Amino acid sequence: MTFRSICAVKGVKAYGIKEGKFGLTLIRASGTAAGVFTENLVKAPPIELMRKQIKKGNMEAVIANSGCANAYTGKRGYDDAVAMTGYAGSELGVEPELVGVASTGVIGRYLDLPLIQRQCKAIAHKIDRTTEAESFAAEAIMTTDTFPKHALVQKETFSIGGITKGSGMIAPNMGTMLAFIYTDADVGARPLSQALKQATQRTFNRVVVDGDMSTNDIALCTATAESGKVKYTEFSLALEECCRLLARQIAADGEGATKLIEVTVTGAKDEEAAAKVARTIIESPLVKTAVYGEDPNWGRVIAAAGRAGVEFDPNAISLWISNGTERYPLVRSGEIIADLKKAKESMHGKKVFFILDLAAGKEEATAWGCDLTERYVEINGRYTT
Amino acid sequence: MTFRSICAVKGVKAYGIKEGKFGLTLIRASGTAAGVFTENLVKAPPIELMRKQIKKGNMEAVIANSGCANAYTGKRGYDDAVAMTGYAGSELGVEPELVGVASTGVIGRYLDLPLIQRQCKAIAHKIDRTTEAESFAAEAIMTTDTFPKHALVQKETFSIGGITKGSGMIAPNMGTMLAFIYTDADVGARPLSQALKQATQRTFNRVVVDGDMSTNDIALCTATAESGKVKYTEFSLALEECCRLLARQIAADGEGATKLIEVTVTGAKDEEAAAKVARTIIESPLVKTAVYGEDPNWGRVIAAAGRAGVEFDPNAISLWISNGTERYPLVRSGEIIADLKKAKESMHGKKVFFILDLAAGKEEATAWGCDLTERYVEINGRYTT
Repeated sequence: MTFRSICAVKGVKAYGIKEGKFGLTLIRASGTAAGVFTENLVKAPPIELMRKQIKKGNMEAVIANSGCANAYTGKRGYDDAVAMTGYAGSELGVEPELVGVASTGVIGRYLDLPLIQRQCKAIAHKIDRTTEAESFAAEAIMTTDTFPKHALVQKETFSIGGITKGSGMIAPNMGTMLAFIYTDADVGARPLSQALKQATQRTFNRVVVDGDMSTNDIALCTATAESGKVKYTEFSLALEECCRLLARQIAADGEGATKLIEVTVTGAKDEEAAAKVARTIIESPLVKTAVYGEDPNWGRVIAAAGRAGVEFDPNAISLWISNGTERYPLVRSGEIIADLKKAKESMHGKKVFFILDLAAGKEEATAWGCDLTERYVEINGRYTT
Repeated sequence: MTFRSICAVKGVKAYGIKEGKFGLTLIRASGTAAGVFTENLVKAPPIELMRKQIKKGNMEAVIANSGCANAYTGKRGYDDAVAMTGYAGSELGVEPELVGVASTGVIGRYLDLPLIQRQCKAIAHKIDRTTEAESFAAEAIMTTDTFPKHALVQKETFSIGGITKGSGMIAPNMGTMLAFIYTDADVGARPLSQALKQATQRTFNRVVVDGDMSTNDIALCTATAESGKVKYTEFSLALEECCRLLARQIAADGEGATKLIEVTVTGAKDEEAAAKVARTIIESPLVKTAVYGEDPNWGRVIAAAGRAGVEFDPNAISLWISNGTERYPLVRSGEIIADLKKAKESMHGKKVFFILDLAAGKEEATAWGCDLTERYVEINGRYTT
């Protein structure tokens, strides 16, 4: 078996444990570090702590738990997050101030610290650089995810590997998403931060599952430097590719989802306008339910585009639908030319692509999402209890 | 039987017919007129025509059809909308330029003009001022609505009555909503327009069913002047009340909805901030599914508030849940004090109220929405076909 993600990166060891709803992941890797966090005004205590820690620009390890988000828990929640870094620090023999911490799960409950301490003790001596270890690490952070998410980008001189969890509350500007990305490239803290911000902007921030934004989102990247120096451009493109591979998996695994939706908007006056339109389409419950029902209701796509707050001429646009291999035109330069039967057929698979040309410029952007199903309602109608 | 809406207003006659999916409503009333229209960049041809007509400040009649939105139909669609005003004009003996027109239904299809002409002929001589007539008028504009929507506000010296249809695509800034409101007060076109804009802002624009915005929304108000002059303030408050009664019915009848959700945000620095937070909460699929599941998941309410883009101190806010008669505190000044069992009980009815105090000012606003159910997904997964 070959590595699927973080353990392919030199200098990274990991392990994870999951007991019912409650999981714990430990990752050990020394290096420069950068993070991107939720923009929600209500930030969970572990996020507050991480924001402080990441300023040092270095990280030795990460401890992350699933099952309880430790969010909206005030001073006690902050102390609990500090305690988590303490457990990891003492078990792994590193400074607690250099241990990153993340939590995901139910909001408004306190952590079960004894449980976390016990789990930490149980796995700390098992951390390793094996395919099994990275699998356990990816599985232990899952909440309503239906599959663990790995990505690996291997270049001639360096590797980038990442694990992530997503599912509900994934929104523009991130949802309850944890992403732990590692590279053995030698990258300084500042360029690492710059590359991660741009990659996040173009990938994770363009995934929409239900438009809600979590209090706990983190994307963290650590560079162990064990493979030596790299060119910034090559590195940042590879990092973006790794994030994109993770982002698509998050979208495909949206709560209750049966289909991945990918919307590419071209011909925009700038990338921001293209992204705004793509996101508005991917966020539309009417588009999402139409994809679920394999209903090529292109009117909903165009109506969503029309309310994105971006200027374009509705009579100049073109729209295609695709299953990833062949494109079917629905509207060309404002003329409806949909062959609805063919269009419907192209929606039978697990992936549905829309390509919308605004005919208003040269820039483009892509956003990812999923269909809206009865199962989404079921999952979210009864979560607390 | 007593009047429920428009026919209570002196000078208003109406009628409607519904044949399968295809309905037609005619309303005859001479007076000053004002309208508020969709802000979607993609506007249906009847909207383009209405925007032109309303500038005259007078209206003699309205013709509205359901089943086909005549949207994204270009030049031919515009000509078809003009044709509709022609049918109504010749049957009712008024200038076609003074006939308002509206359409609701599927996007991207041409009108069946012969059908509309036949329906118009069939009902034009039946228009009347009876309870039956206003009922038929309200029923004929329904699409996926499950009940006709009437509102009536009676003051000592004047009345305001309205009918509306809503259901899907109801969004901030209106959805496929048609509202026809009449008053016998004597109000000039300009103050009428001002009062309607403000009322729409505070009522229809704060109804969110699925966050999508239709290409066809119209709120129209005609003043027949038969009851004489009124004070502007008294009139505008009564108009707002009438619109609020209609807006709540639209929210309660959201596609697949089982519960009305009303969110009131108090203690905001201005009304706009309060409205922004209220809307973000009411729009959240996680809040909507929690209400459906009678799950008092207050964390989702606060997480939604946190991403509304409005500044407040998360540790100072208070949150209550209510069934309309009693309030249960969930969070008080940042402290969680939820009695989840009691809170859950208060969610058993057809109406769920959240009251959120931001502790950041003195202004407030209310928004209306509904829960998100499996039925919503069913209805919208198979609409075109």
